[in-house]
Amino acid sequence: MPVIIVNYKTYAEAAGKKAVKLSKTAEEVSLESGVNICVAPQVADIKSIAETVSIPVFAQHIDPVVPGSYTGHILLESVKEAGAVGTLINHAEKQLKLCDIEAIVARTREADMISVVCTSNAAVSEAAAALKPDIISLEPPELIGTGIPVSKSKPDAVTEMVTLVKHVNPCAVTLCGAGITKGDDVVAALKLGTMGVLVASGIVKAKDPRKVLMEFSEAISETM
Amino acid sequence: MPVIIVNYKTYAEAAGKKAVKLSKTAEEVSLESGVNICVAPQVADIKSIAETVSIPVFAQHIDPVVPGSYTGHILLESVKEAGAVGTLINHAEKQLKLCDIEAIVARTREADMISVVCTSNAAVSEAAAALKPDIISLEPPELIGTGIPVSKSKPDAVTEMVTLVKHVNPCAVTLCGAGITKGDDVVAALKLGTMGVLVASGIVKAKDPRKVLMEFSEAISETM
Amino acid sequence: MPVIIVNYKTYAEAAGKKAVKLSKTAEEVSLESGVNICVAPQVADIKSIAETVSIPVFAQHIDPVVPGSYTGHILLESVKEAGAVGTLINHAEKQLKLCDIEAIVARTREADMISVVCTSNAAVSEAAAALKPDIISLEPPELIGTGIPVSKSKPDAVTEMVTLVKHVNPCAVTLCGAGITKGDDVVAALKLGTMGVLVASGIVKAKDPRKVLMEFSEAISETM
Amino acid sequence: MPVIIVNYKTYAEAAGKKAVKLSKTAEEVSLESGVNICVAPQVADIKSIAETVSIPVFAQHIDPVVPGSYTGHILLESVKEAGAVGTLINHAEKQLKLCDIEAIVARTREADMISVVCTSNAAVSEAAAALKPDIISLEPPELIGTGIPVSKSKPDAVTEMVTLVKHVNPCAVTLCGAGITKGDDVVAALKLGTMGVLVASGIVKAKDPRKVLMEFSEAISETM
Repeated sequence: MPVIIVNYKTYAEAAGKKAVKLSKTAEEVSLESGVNICVAPQVADIKSIAETVSIPVFAQHIDPVVPGSYTGHILLESVKEAGAVGTLINHAEKQLKLCDIEAIVARTREADMISVVCTSNAAVSEAAAALKPDIISLEPPELIGTGIPVSKSKPDAVTEMVTLVKHVNPCAVTLCGAGITKGDDVVAALKLGTMGVLVASGIVKAKDPRKVLMEFSEAISETM
Repeated sequence: MPVIIVNYKTYAEAAGKKAVKLSKTAEEVSLESGVNICVAPQVADIKSIAETVSIPVFAQHIDPVVPGSYTGHILLESVKEAGAVGTLINHAEKQLKLCDIEAIVARTREADMISVVCTSNAAVSEAAAALKPDIISLEPPELIGTGIPVSKSKPDAVTEMVTLVKHVNPCAVTLCGAGITKGDDVVAALKLGTMGVLVASGIVKAKDPRKVLMEFSEAISETM
Repeated sequence: MPVIIVNYKTYAEAAGKKAVKLSKTAEEVSLESGVNICVAPQVADIKSIAETVSIPVFAQHIDPVVPGSYTGHILLESVKEAGAVGTLINHAEKQLKLCDIEAIVARTREADMISVVCTSNAAVSEAAAALKPDIISLEPPELIGTGIPVSKSKPDAVTEMVTLVKHVNPCAVTLCGAGITKGDDVVAALKLGTMGVLVASGIVKAKDPRKVLMEFSEAISETM
Repeated sequence: MPVIIVNYKTYAEAAGKKAVKLSKTAEEVSLESGVNICVAPQVADIKSIAETVSIPVFAQHIDPVVPGSYTGHILLESVKEAGAVGTLINHAEKQLKLCDIEAIVARTREADMISVVCTSNAAVSEAAAALKPDIISLEPPELIGTGIPVSKSKPDAVTEMVTLVKHVNPCAVTLCGAGITKGDDVVAALKLGTMGVLVASGIVKAKDPRKVLMEFSEAISETM
């Protein structure tokens, strides 16, 4: 089933009370359209959002640590108790050591949380797939925040990613992101073999996030 | 005015609902004893705690970023809106680049938040003091979690730290931490010229945290 | 063809003039036994060693940078001009971001240098193999420097690594390391399907490095 | 006595054989002009250069490690045996944790090597000065490589740095760098109270490095 994950980053437009409000909007569109929409807010906002909406809430990052003496780290158990059902891992803006990605994916698996490993190109995607996360999301860093959609400007990279990931890990779900701002971009992503998109500024910084989310959702519904 | 800051680290005993409960205990002891007790929970717990208790809540760490495209980072504005009034910086378990400590201290100053820079020895304390944070807390890493109190086992290091910090920044408040488990350890810290202690396992992992917090608070009251 | 790579780390016993001397010993054993022995000294010693011996010299690490404004970084072009024919990547003591491993492997490929990606377990090995380095070397961190040979204490981990790597990258050469001190350990490594060993203290800190290198080489010759 | 330190970064124009050649040029100008010129090449080039010229050779960075199991790290003892008499620390392109800067400065002191801590602004300079390095060099990152000289475009920042550093550490030598390309820029730096400049592209990427070095040296000689 296709999915839209909305990454709130540290955008002022999607923090605190505004994060809760945007999450309600996402929930409404999800209920109305039947499309699976997830949100990835800042850690401090996870609990409020998870208590307010029924759509899945993700962390943007967790650290490769266990309960104990790890001051200042983001712990799986903490975001889980707050209500997160999964986490982004290795986002282009928070890239991790290979050993830490492996450790975090393994921890999410044990904790029955959904792991979304973000990757910058096809080779890295294949490597990530070998760690058996639930989802791999290709986001070429040079396109992030540009409005130039990966699904239209780099279709071959997406296709190659999907093929390589399937070879190593046939169960993995693939997404793509970067520059996604229109329903058409989402359709293009699905046609390339992915199961949806990871989007940030395209929704968060839109004049009317509800309208864009609805456009994305309708595009998905028509494609299926 | 002396202060006790309780660092919850990523301890299971001080996370989620348990974090709220421990914070209520800290608030009760603070009200009863008149001693200033602050708590530093995990980010995901800041909001619940700040909404529940009136004692000061600190973040354990914030990243040197501004609102924007910083997926997975901990933003000052986010922990502040959640209710934090300050933050630990450069804890021994989350050591930072010098340039980042400078940037974070500057950001806390602009945001009227309290900055507590943790340091590992006297020379580092003096360097940190030059950045003009509100509080410098010496915590020799080799004593953290050992139960060997810095204030008794390394009194000269604490005295040197206090002297060097005052030279560079006469307004700075100094604390010390590591191995603090008894009222006597707190008294020793005050006698060395600090304004209190940064404590973690000594409270969080105590059989009866309320009792130990009360012991610390009474020791402080008697010393003043 | 089997290979022994001797990692000099930052050991005093294998630095500067001592590094050149040890490399001469390695060359003699290699010539005498016909076994392929490579050395991986500190960067500052690469040139002297490469000018003195004819056996392959590796860097222990290179940074993911290109010629330009990267003060303090270790550049592929620099170690190559000094005489290195390859490099270790992601050693347990110098672990790297996934994106950086990918970038470094790609750079070594373009520069016709041999890439040896070190890995800590089978899953990480499979991920590394997807990046198409020339060599993958499994070194469980908990065994490094212990004298407990990976090839005898964790044979299943080595076999799994070899299988997973071959699945993703049939051309990749596999090695293993950690705790290798005897000819028997090397034989065990070969029998598990690897093409040799990555060894450090087992040679560098041996009372008689020549004797141990000869023991390793004879064990390899007898196995082939 | 004023000093010019030439940072070769990882520039192709100042690597390998070209690094040795540029160092000879620097030596010639130094002998001819009587001005103290130092060079900071890549690690792999330190030995060749130190064996060829008599002017001081610096490392661009060393890691906070001791001899032992630190694969891939740059060790003080190694660059010292290769011929370095000092090291840059915390360059804007290789920024370090506060605790590591402290450890490296302490190690250079014990080893009688010259420590040059690079800093990005006045507050960081004062902090660095508290660690008692031999030299503090202010290099505002935004000016590096621009050709806009710090000594002319940010004179107040340089003056403030000199004042704050002297307060904390009266013995410290101060330098400045970033955008220095002309003799006039060097004169301006000296007039602001520094003892010289840290320069990179201004020399390395000059059409005629000898001519620019001579211009710098003559400007210094005339100022003294």
